[in-house]
Formats: sequence, C-alpha cells, structure tokens
Amino acid sequence: MNIIPLRIALAQVNMTVGDLEGNAKIILAMMQQAHTAGAHIVCFPELALTGYPPEDLLLKPGFVNANLCKLDELVAASHTLRGLTAVIGFVDRKQDIYNAAAVVHEGSLVGVYHKHYLPNYGVFDENRYFQVGQQAPIFLIHGVHVGINICEDIWYATGPMTSQAHAGAEVIININGSPYHAGKGQARAEMLSTRAYDNGLIVVYLNIVGGQDELVFDGESMVFNEQGQLIARAKQFCTDLLIVDLDTASVFRSRLHDPRRRKERLQVTANEVPIVPVTTCPLPTLAANNHVVLGAPQRIEPQMERLQEIYSALVLGTGDYARKTGFKQVVIGLSGGIDSSLTATIAVDALGAENVLGVLMPSGYSSQGSKTDAITLAENLGIHYLVVPIEETFRASLGMLRPVLGDDDLGLAAENLQSRIRGNIMMAISNKLGPLVLTTGNKSEMATGYTTLYGDMAGGFAVLKDVLKTLVYELCHYRNSIGEKALIPQQVIDKPPSAELRPGQKDTDSLPPYNELDPILKAYVEDDRSFEEMLAMGFEGKTVERIMRLVDLSEYKRRQAPPGVKITPRAFGRDRRLPIINRYREVL
Amino acid sequence: MNIIPLRIALAQVNMTVGDLEGNAKIILAMMQQAHTAGAHIVCFPELALTGYPPEDLLLKPGFVNANLCKLDELVAASHTLRGLTAVIGFVDRKQDIYNAAAVVHEGSLVGVYHKHYLPNYGVFDENRYFQVGQQAPIFLIHGVHVGINICEDIWYATGPMTSQAHAGAEVIININGSPYHAGKGQARAEMLSTRAYDNGLIVVYLNIVGGQDELVFDGESMVFNEQGQLIARAKQFCTDLLIVDLDTASVFRSRLHDPRRRKERLQVTANEVPIVPVTTCPLPTLAANNHVVLGAPQRIEPQMERLQEIYSALVLGTGDYARKTGFKQVVIGLSGGIDSSLTATIAVDALGAENVLGVLMPSGYSSQGSKTDAITLAENLGIHYLVVPIEETFRASLGMLRPVLGDDDLGLAAENLQSRIRGNIMMAISNKLGPLVLTTGNKSEMATGYTTLYGDMAGGFAVLKDVLKTLVYELCHYRNSIGEKALIPQQVIDKPPSAELRPGQKDTDSLPPYNELDPILKAYVEDDRSFEEMLAMGFEGKTVERIMRLVDLSEYKRRQAPPGVKITPRAFGRDRRLPIINRYREVL
Repeated sequence: MNIIPLRIALAQVNMTVGDLEGNAKIILAMMQQAHTAGAHIVCFPELALTGYPPEDLLLKPGFVNANLCKLDELVAASHTLRGLTAVIGFVDRKQDIYNAAAVVHEGSLVGVYHKHYLPNYGVFDENRYFQVGQQAPIFLIHGVHVGINICEDIWYATGPMTSQAHAGAEVIININGSPYHAGKGQARAEMLSTRAYDNGLIVVYLNIVGGQDELVFDGESMVFNEQGQLIARAKQFCTDLLIVDLDTASVFRSRLHDPRRRKERLQVTANEVPIVPVTTCPLPTLAANNHVVLGAPQRIEPQMERLQEIYSALVLGTGDYARKTGFKQVVIGLSGGIDSSLTATIAVDALGAENVLGVLMPSGYSSQGSKTDAITLAENLGIHYLVVPIEETFRASLGMLRPVLGDDDLGLAAENLQSRIRGNIMMAISNKLGPLVLTTGNKSEMATGYTTLYGDMAGGFAVLKDVLKTLVYELCHYRNSIGEKALIPQQVIDKPPSAELRPGQKDTDSLPPYNELDPILKAYVEDDRSFEEMLAMGFEGKTVERIMRLVDLSEYKRRQAPPGVKITPRAFGRDRRLPIINRYREVL
Repeated sequence: MNIIPLRIALAQVNMTVGDLEGNAKIILAMMQQAHTAGAHIVCFPELALTGYPPEDLLLKPGFVNANLCKLDELVAASHTLRGLTAVIGFVDRKQDIYNAAAVVHEGSLVGVYHKHYLPNYGVFDENRYFQVGQQAPIFLIHGVHVGINICEDIWYATGPMTSQAHAGAEVIININGSPYHAGKGQARAEMLSTRAYDNGLIVVYLNIVGGQDELVFDGESMVFNEQGQLIARAKQFCTDLLIVDLDTASVFRSRLHDPRRRKERLQVTANEVPIVPVTTCPLPTLAANNHVVLGAPQRIEPQMERLQEIYSALVLGTGDYARKTGFKQVVIGLSGGIDSSLTATIAVDALGAENVLGVLMPSGYSSQGSKTDAITLAENLGIHYLVVPIEETFRASLGMLRPVLGDDDLGLAAENLQSRIRGNIMMAISNKLGPLVLTTGNKSEMATGYTTLYGDMAGGFAVLKDVLKTLVYELCHYRNSIGEKALIPQQVIDKPPSAELRPGQKDTDSLPPYNELDPILKAYVEDDRSFEEMLAMGFEGKTVERIMRLVDLSEYKRRQAPPGVKITPRAFGRDRRLPIINRYREVL
C-alpha cells in the first residue's frame, strides 16, 4: 500500500464555448502551474476544451475534429510535464460522439472515460448529442487507484462510480458542468458526502465557473474524504486552482475497519464485479517542492450566504455575457425604480463603473422623484449618464398614429408606445456607441407579462429575468449593507413600484402586491403546482386563477425575450419549454 | 382465414395543443362518422388527445391526469358504437408517462401501446418526457391481426413493427405527429412502401394536419399494401377522413407465394419470437352499408407539386397560428417589396382578405414606386390598408437623439431607427385594434442578420422565416400563376431588393446577390457543411467566409425572433440550437 499522499490540483476554470484555441491555452497554463506546484494529477471540468454546453456545435463534424486536434496538441505538450497526469473534458469521437474525459500523461493519451448518464431534462439536452458510455475504467496513478467519471454519473447511487469503487478505486474524480441555482451547492455537498461515505473513498468534485448564455456555473469545487467529510473547497463564482493532498492510506485503513462496507464490497465483488480494465500510469516522480505533511489542513473556502451567492451569480453571469460576446460596455435605462437601480449596481460590480452608461428617458408621466433618484443612483455608482426626454417623440408618434387609430384614449397602446420609444433610444445608443443594452425586467414581470415587448424588453441581456420582485428588494438591501455606503437610494426602495406610463400608475393597479404574487409564481412556474394544490397552500382562488392565466398568456412575449441569468431551479428559457399555442387551462 | 375486408377510417384531424375538451369532441365526432361509414377501425394521430407536441405541459401532473379523464370519457362514449374499434393517441401514465395509443372498443379500453423509439433530435425532445415502451402487442380486430405503433417506431427496420409482423400482424397502424418539410412526403412514402413489402403486410400511416407554433403537419396519410404499393392517400394540409377497405386476404395469399418472406418469417419465429400478448376484440358486426367490393378502387388524393406544397404549408401554418392563438385578423407592413407582398398574399389565402390589414409606412427614402406597388398589391388582394408616414416621428426621434449621439452620420443607427419606428406603429395598431402582427423577413435575412431587431422583426409570427429569398421569388411566380390574375405586381418581382433605409440602398450593397447567397446558406445552415466542403462545392472563399461570420454573429437576433413555419429540414428555432456565446470560427 502506497502511503505517499496524492497531490491533486482542481483547475476550476472559466472557459468560453467554441473558443478551442483559448480554452486549450488556459488548460496548458494550468497544467504547467499544477506541475510547478508538485501535483500528481490536475483535472479540468466537463467539456473544458469546448466550453459547456456547446449545444448544436456538436453536430458540426469540423468542430468535433478541431476539438480532437486541440487535445492532441495538449497531449504532445504534456510530454515535458514529468510525473503529471491531466484529466481533461473533451468530445470524443469513435463511431459516434461522447461526452468524455481524457487521461493524459507525459505525452500519451493513457485512457478515455465516456459519460454514462446523459441529462436530458431542465436545461440539458445531452441525449440530442451523445452516445452513452459503457465502460468504467480505473487508473493507477502514483500508486493510487483512481476512478474518473462525469457530472450526472455521480448522481446515481448505482452508477459507474459504484463499479469503480468495487474494482478498488480509492479516489473518484468527478468532473462537472453543473449550472448554478440558489441552494444547489448544499444539495450537491450532501450527495457527494453520501457517495464518498457509501463507497468508502475520496470524492473529488470539480465544477466549471463562469457564465454561458442563460447559465452561470458557480465553481465551488469540493473534496470529501472516505468518512464523507468536506476536506477542501474552492471559491464560488471565481476561477481557482485548488491543490489538495489526499490521504489515500486512510481510505484503505477505513475499509479494514468498516465491516459493513467491507462485507458489502466482498459480496458484490464475488457476485458481479464489472469488467474494468485498469491502466497503469508510470509512477510520477515527486516534484522538488512536494514535501507534504499528511493530514495538513487543506483550503476550505467559506461558503457564501444566500443573498451573497445569488448576487455573485448575477454579477458573474452578466459580466461574462458581456465579455464573452465581445462587449466592453453596457447601457441601462434608469427609471429611478428598483429594478433598473439593482441592474445598474450589478453591472458596475461586473464591469466597473467606467463601463456602465445610464440613460434617463423621462416623459410627462415621470415623477420628479424618479429623475432625481436615478441621478442619485448614477452618482452613487460613479457612472456616466445621459438624459433623453421622450416627450416630443411621443407627441410626434401620437400625431402619426391618430389618423389611423382615432381620437379615443389609446390606453395600453399609448403606454406601450412610450416604453417602445425608450427601447428605440437604447438600441440607437447601442448601434451608434457600441454598448450592450441590459434590460431591467424581473421574473415577476416576465411571468405575468407586465412588460412591453420591444419596449423595456429590448436589449441583449436580461439581468433580473429569473429574480422575483421580492428578491429584487432583498438583493438591494444586501448590496446596500455590504459597501461603505448604501448605493441604492432609500427612496428608490421605499416608493411604490410604478411603470409611470400613465398618471398615478402603480403596479398594484394591475397585479397583486408582490409579496402575494411571488409565492404564487414560485408555486406555479417553478414547482408546477396545480390550482387545487395552490388553494390548499392557502392562496386565494380568484388571484391564483388570474395569475395562472397571465402566466399562460405571456408565453409569446417570453419567447422573444433576451437571455438572463438562471438562479432558480426553473428559469424561463431552455428550462421551461411551453408551447405558445396552448389552450390548456386548469381552471376553465 | 377471414376474407371479409377490414374497413379502416383514417381520421386526419387538426388538433390544438392543450385543448383536451375540443380535441376530445373532434375525436368523438369522427368516431361517430367512421361508425356511420361502416368502419371497423378508426384511428387518430399521435397524441391526438393532447395535441402534438405538448412540450412541458407533460411535466404538469394535472395535465396528464386531465388527458386520462378525457380518454375515459371517450371510452365510455364508445359504448354505443357497436363493432367499431378506435385507436387514439394519448399520454399514458403508469409508474412514468408514455407516448401511447389506446385501443378502445365498445366501452372498454382493450389495450394500450407505448411508443418504443423516442425522437430526440431536430425539433424533437421526447426523451425529456417519455419512458420507452417495452411491448409490441397485436390485436385481433374483425378477424384480422393488427399491430399498432407510433411514428418513429416504423422508421427502424428492426423496430417493434418487425416483432408485430413476426407474431402474425397482417396490418400495421402507424399513428404519427410527423412535421412537414419540403420533400419529406417522398421520403416517407419510400420508407413506408419498403416496410410494407419487407414485412409482407399492409401499412396504414396516419398523420396529423395543422400548425403548432413553428411546426406544420401536412397530413398526407397513406396506405400501402403488402406489395409496397400505395393504395390510398388522404389530402395534404387539410383535415380528412380517409376510409379504406383493406384486402387482408391478399396479405395471406402473398405470404404463401413468397418463399423469401415465408422462410425469413419462419426462421425468426423459430429462434426468437418476441412475447406478444394478443388481445381478441369481439368481432364487430358489419354496419348495414358495409357492402364492399374487394379490390374496389380506393381514394388516392393527388400529390402536390413542390411549390404548391410549400405554399400550402405556409398558408396552413400561418392560418393555424392566428386561429389557435385566438386572433381573427392580422396586420402586415407593406413596403412594396417582394417579401411583404408574398406574406400578405399568404395571409389572405389563410384568413380571407377581410381579415388582413396592410400598413404602408413610407419615409423620405421610400421610392414612389414602393408606395404605388404596395397599393396595387392591396387592391389586387382586396385588403384594407392604412398609410402612416413616419417622416415626422423619424425627425423628432433624430432631434431627441442628436444631443446624445452627436451630429455625425448616424449610419446604421438611423437605418434601424426607421425600421423600429415602423415596428412601433405595427405594435400600436395591434395593441389598439387587435390584429396579430405578421413579420415579413425571409430566411436569407434571418440567417445573415440583415434585419432589424424590434424593427421589421417585431411581430407575433414570421411567415417566411424558413423561406430563402430565391424561394420567395419562386413562390410569388407560383401564386401568380394559379389565380385568374397575377396578384403580386410584376414590378414588385422585377425591382432590385432594397430595405429603403437610406438613399439608393440595395440589398446587394451588403450581401451577395441572392442566387449566390442562398446556396451557401443552405450548405452552411441546413447541411452543416464545413468551409472546405463549401470551397469544394465551388463557392468563392471570401464570400463563404463572410457569410459564415454573418450567420454566426446573428444568433442573438434569431433568439429574439418570432416563430415561423418550418419548411426545410433545418429551420431556425428548436431545430438549430446554437449558443449565443460562441467563439467557434472555422475560418480564423
């Protein structure tokens, strides 16, 4: 039994989908860094080479081939990194394609693992692309039996990890592209701890970090020992290289001491051992600085509390969307309301005040407070702002439409018109000056359709798309609480929400108060609760009925909405695929 | 051996997703009609009860339960329809949910078939919802062994149909939700003919008809005899009840005469007969009018030629989108160009001239010809039209923006601004007067991004979204050729395409001529051809490179586009799921 600890480096990297060249450079740099740090193994997340998820790029043979060429380059470059084994997520191509992990060692591709469990729910479509893996090899690395598997594989108690454990794996490396939603970290940690304990081995869980369209990956890579205890954790929402020394001797010791696990293992071994080829890597030589002390404390980054976590997800998702689509700057319409104030604050935290432009677009219906509040916010944030009054254009537009629409009250048409003139201004600024337009609508509005298509919905990225209004308030309080001074003016938080598209308008003219609305939206949209169930939860029937109807009828608007950061288990977008033509009404 | 022919009714119905009540009513009415016509069997398409595809409605337990209740009602109602067996597509619920066919006979649910092959490519996501079926029962109906299976099941030569054939099925009923694309009918017919011949049995292929969001189902249900010959065909793009008398005696006769098939059958039967429970339905009594003559000619509807078929698909897809989302009327911006002219013509054919409103929105850059051409078109079509000049609002908008954007040429910003003012007008008309806004952009524009987000892209349905510009011309010629007089003015067809957003602008200022562009788009977008392959096809390198780049960079616009009718094997939308953040460039 080898008692030299295994030093493993978890490369929690931020990749860009499709950027094979750039991603390969990051991988190589991290391999070198891990080697310098004396690691025996460095691992990279699921599909690290292509970025995750590459979606229909996977249907382009040229893309798959280009990813294989890049892997070859990395294999060749690994030649000089003596004693280091790298585990790299890539797309393998045999008679079909596989979501795969390459095991690379000193200039050779030592082995490949193919993902078994392909998620095809929620935001995932992996059955659309990949063939199912059939083998669960383990690798002997620096004298330690190591099983490698990918993401979903570890969520099944009887998955390939069990085979690997039965075949003698002492360490499992599970590489992930696991998108964030609030509370997911806790669920992952509990599951991983259970897997480690149940199988009596060390579980190394590695996740991507960064934003990709509607998804944000939170990182928070973790290592659990054979007792199910957390022994190391990387940062959340941040690239990281977490280096951990694994006390694999204690895995064997614990097996000897645990009759339950030992017996179970023997029984299974006797009856149904899976055929698992074991590939032996040459023993790496220890790098000079690798004098590690067994049982030395490892790095456990603190876990963020709920609001900090969500806020960080929004900052990273927004910043990465801008950066990865090639924008340096963003522009935001500032209404003096709470949504645009929070959006601007997030943008400043994501991209820096110098890269955020505010635009005030007052109309005759704008309160004086709205304008001064927006200016106070811009000053607090230190961002540049423009003022573009819409009154004249609104008048000209009404004059243009009167001959065909008549002289009656234009009602909703006139309200939307103002919002759309503002949308036009934002897009003209984007077209001429170049910044990405961030929209400011929240999930409560997106759900109920209390938003104007091509108006306030006009823009490239919807920061608060998955944030219910009540959470908007919580996040404002949170952000105000952490800085030296409150950035979001108190009067913005205190005043009743209004779209200010007609005199004296309040959101509550059209919607229930948000503290009533949001729990219903969560029940209906996120949890698929039925009408009956919602009544049993204590909601008022008429209100529930009305909200269900608003949600159902707004699908066509959401279909044309920009993407935004998913922070809940069920976001609008790929997560929730309802038809537009849909006559199903639970309550008739 | 029973030599009484089996009379089967193919109910090619147009259902609405989610409309359980309405769909059940259609099913019951058709059951009664089939019974009156003396049919022994009436069959309904895949998921006829829920409409197809129901997408994430399937994740609502209440929806699945409501569909089961409706099925129960139909089973009860079948009590009085003596001698009739109905095959009805529905969602079955056991420990999981299944894409299923109910076999209903005289008040009883006699059996259920669960679909085996779940398509999860292209526009399909069936792995997201359904569990895989495991059994392939056959049913003895009116003395004939009948196998039932669903859609994709028949596309696999070794699928459940083969088991059913080996177990003695003389007739296969294959119920479908098979979306249209140009040329698909021929591919289906060839496959079905082969399956019938290979297995020596009659294949009854039934498809849905009608539009559902981006999909249109073409109907064209067909029956092939055991020789692989087409013996009956229903209408295309039209509801139909096709009644066919099946000469099942000849199936047996042909088996006796065909040693190849007989031998093959016996071999398989001896070695690996699947376990197939046979449920015997009581023999139905023949209805009074069922005096059929064996070998009598059946109804074979003529097959449309290519342009008629595509045109019909656009008419049905557009009409159904409006009707099923609850709109009676549509409104279309008429520029005097070919795209809006074709869109308006399709809308008139779909909904009637009285339900189509044209809007002319001339600017200072509009040619006189554009205005007169649009008016000529409106008069030819007999539609009402409004004229809303945008000049004043455009001037006011520029005046509003000058202080912040400066006095230079606003270039693209000014061009887009005009388009967006028009978008605002269309939406104001929709908000105030109620019609659905149809957009007029074609696939060439959608592909290259030669279109304005929130401008000409503003609307509920994009009729020509999947129609390349060269096909737009073909369809105009086609439509002009079939009426008493040409509806689309010749000068509209003859003039060079222009967006008319700056003086003297032509599409060819920004794009290659469409007869060069479209084949490249087809190769890249529809066929996933690589740069090298396109060079080998004879396209010019620089042009291909530029077009690939335009297509890649326009993904963000397409993500916010309204749905439109899919008519090609690869439409934009659910069919082609590319990330917005995507740095993959084949040509660097």
